[in-house]
Amino acid sequence: MNLKNDLILRAARGEHIERYPVWLMRQAGRILPEYRAVRNSLSGFKELVETPELAAEVTIQPVDILGVDAAIIFSDILVVPEAMGLEYQMLEKRGPWFEETIRTQSEMSKITTDFDIEDRLGYVLDAIKITNKELAGRVPLIGFAGAPWTIFCYMTEGQGSKTFSVARKILYTNPSLAHQLMSDITDVTIRYLKAQVQAGAHMLQLFDSWAGILGPDQYAEFAMPYIKRIADAIDEVPLTLFSKGAHHSYGPLAALNCNTIGVDWQIDMTLARKLVGNNRTLQGNLDPCALYASDEQLVNSTKVLLKSFENRRHIVNLGHGVYPDVDPEKVKVFVETVKNFKL
Amino acid sequence: MNLKNDLILRAARGEHIERYPVWLMRQAGRILPEYRAVRNSLSGFKELVETPELAAEVTIQPVDILGVDAAIIFSDILVVPEAMGLEYQMLEKRGPWFEETIRTQSEMSKITTDFDIEDRLGYVLDAIKITNKELAGRVPLIGFAGAPWTIFCYMTEGQGSKTFSVARKILYTNPSLAHQLMSDITDVTIRYLKAQVQAGAHMLQLFDSWAGILGPDQYAEFAMPYIKRIADAIDEVPLTLFSKGAHHSYGPLAALNCNTIGVDWQIDMTLARKLVGNNRTLQGNLDPCALYASDEQLVNSTKVLLKSFENRRHIVNLGHGVYPDVDPEKVKVFVETVKNFKL
Repeated sequence: MNLKNDLILRAARGEHIERYPVWLMRQAGRILPEYRAVRNSLSGFKELVETPELAAEVTIQPVDILGVDAAIIFSDILVVPEAMGLEYQMLEKRGPWFEETIRTQSEMSKITTDFDIEDRLGYVLDAIKITNKELAGRVPLIGFAGAPWTIFCYMTEGQGSKTFSVARKILYTNPSLAHQLMSDITDVTIRYLKAQVQAGAHMLQLFDSWAGILGPDQYAEFAMPYIKRIADAIDEVPLTLFSKGAHHSYGPLAALNCNTIGVDWQIDMTLARKLVGNNRTLQGNLDPCALYASDEQLVNSTKVLLKSFENRRHIVNLGHGVYPDVDPEKVKVFVETVKNFKL
Repeated sequence: MNLKNDLILRAARGEHIERYPVWLMRQAGRILPEYRAVRNSLSGFKELVETPELAAEVTIQPVDILGVDAAIIFSDILVVPEAMGLEYQMLEKRGPWFEETIRTQSEMSKITTDFDIEDRLGYVLDAIKITNKELAGRVPLIGFAGAPWTIFCYMTEGQGSKTFSVARKILYTNPSLAHQLMSDITDVTIRYLKAQVQAGAHMLQLFDSWAGILGPDQYAEFAMPYIKRIADAIDEVPLTLFSKGAHHSYGPLAALNCNTIGVDWQIDMTLARKLVGNNRTLQGNLDPCALYASDEQLVNSTKVLLKSFENRRHIVNLGHGVYPDVDPEKVKVFVETVKNFKL
């Protein structure tokens, strides 16, 4: 199917664009009353993730309502550890929670990489197919996965944490176990991302949400090699690497086989450009809290961001997922400001 | 009283040192069985903070047991908002919690700056006096406070948060309220720190624990001016500024009237030195998780850190507070490795 709007793909590849493309991380979700209506009719978050028709419906909502230049498949990074054998729950207020964790060599027997992606994650692939059918080429569809380090955090810690000291302890006390688990996650992630492309994803993003908790040396030793393996394996579609909070990683990430580097709001875009160089696209990085301001202030801070770009290799986004209590009207102001900005 | 060991003060001032001084953030606390014995005999954390004889006792424990080169008064940064009128609780597992918060102009009436420090925070000053008496000059005693931005976070949010989006929202929606509250916190903090010096604190540290959640522009606008006011007001003793996670702030902080910049473990000391320059002392920055490793590995990673120093203006510490489940024997290995390192 031909895409009517392929702006974000051209921006990712560094091709000519007539304006900057814009989308928001977590655009399909709690900010929209239309999402909450679907979500509240179900038993929980996981039922929505695992029901392809409904996942497709909420994936498309922000395209219709907010006018963004891309859809991102409604899913969760934790479907990968679950497919490997560790079931997750999404608890109200508390967030993700795993009954079982991997902290010792013998606990590796709880998981496997020897399974068919279609078999265990077919619901995501089906959601991608339905979404593309219903989008009918209006915008590209982004697939995604968690980066191995972030998935490792959840598989060892079993829940969110301020320090992830259980996960990080293993890097010191049992580095070979850490590498083995990271490698297993990587194998599954590569097959999963390729299956998403096969199902119809037009581009891919790798989320390393807990990148910022590691020092530069450990990030280089335990996280980067596995991101590299994934990047090397993905040639079919543009790939975005988002290592939140790890500004030291921007240079090394940009040297990998990828198209776009995701940028959080805690760094100036000018410095991010300096670290990344001119051969990669940057994605980001308005502070999610800027969407709490008045329309006038929001337009202004969006324009300040756009004017700070030193070249056209940019995809506009927030520096992190949109916060759930943001007014969708503010998101529209943000999106429209980007779309109306003359290059 | 003359200090028998003033190494850390000389290091802070950039004077001659015969070896690097070493202490640990949160050294007085849950890692020590001797601390837990005192703590478990009481109703809660706050009773310990507010009982000078016991606060002094746990302050001195790590000097006796771990052999560190400084004591830091056992207290909490939240005593300041409480003195201003917002009572805090320290809940098991959940952390700090405030019944009342400040989010609107009218809620400013809940707080005051018009009080005597001795009157409301005398228990900290008494703890400092008792500690110094009992230390008898063995090591210097560090006093501390939270930086205004971090205290603002708790006074508005009312509890810990992954995003502090309530606190950050106010910076966008009501910047004048934000500046007013930050200014009030600053006034009290200056008087509180000066009272600590009067009571006997030999050096001071300002903890900006949530510095990393702000972008560089907002840190410059809302956090830095109030740190500057505090730094300008403190001339009596050496001052350490620790803005965790905000590496962009290291250069501007180093330009203030201070002696030492605290460095977290997510940045290489070499880069920190480059950002700070040679006219300030650096404090840090071993990964707290390095204390989970074997003795041999811990000695090795400590030596790697020490050898990375480009000059002698260093106080050795972790990059964050020691984690509560760390074995005190490991802390001793860390401390001894630093003390035995030949300059």
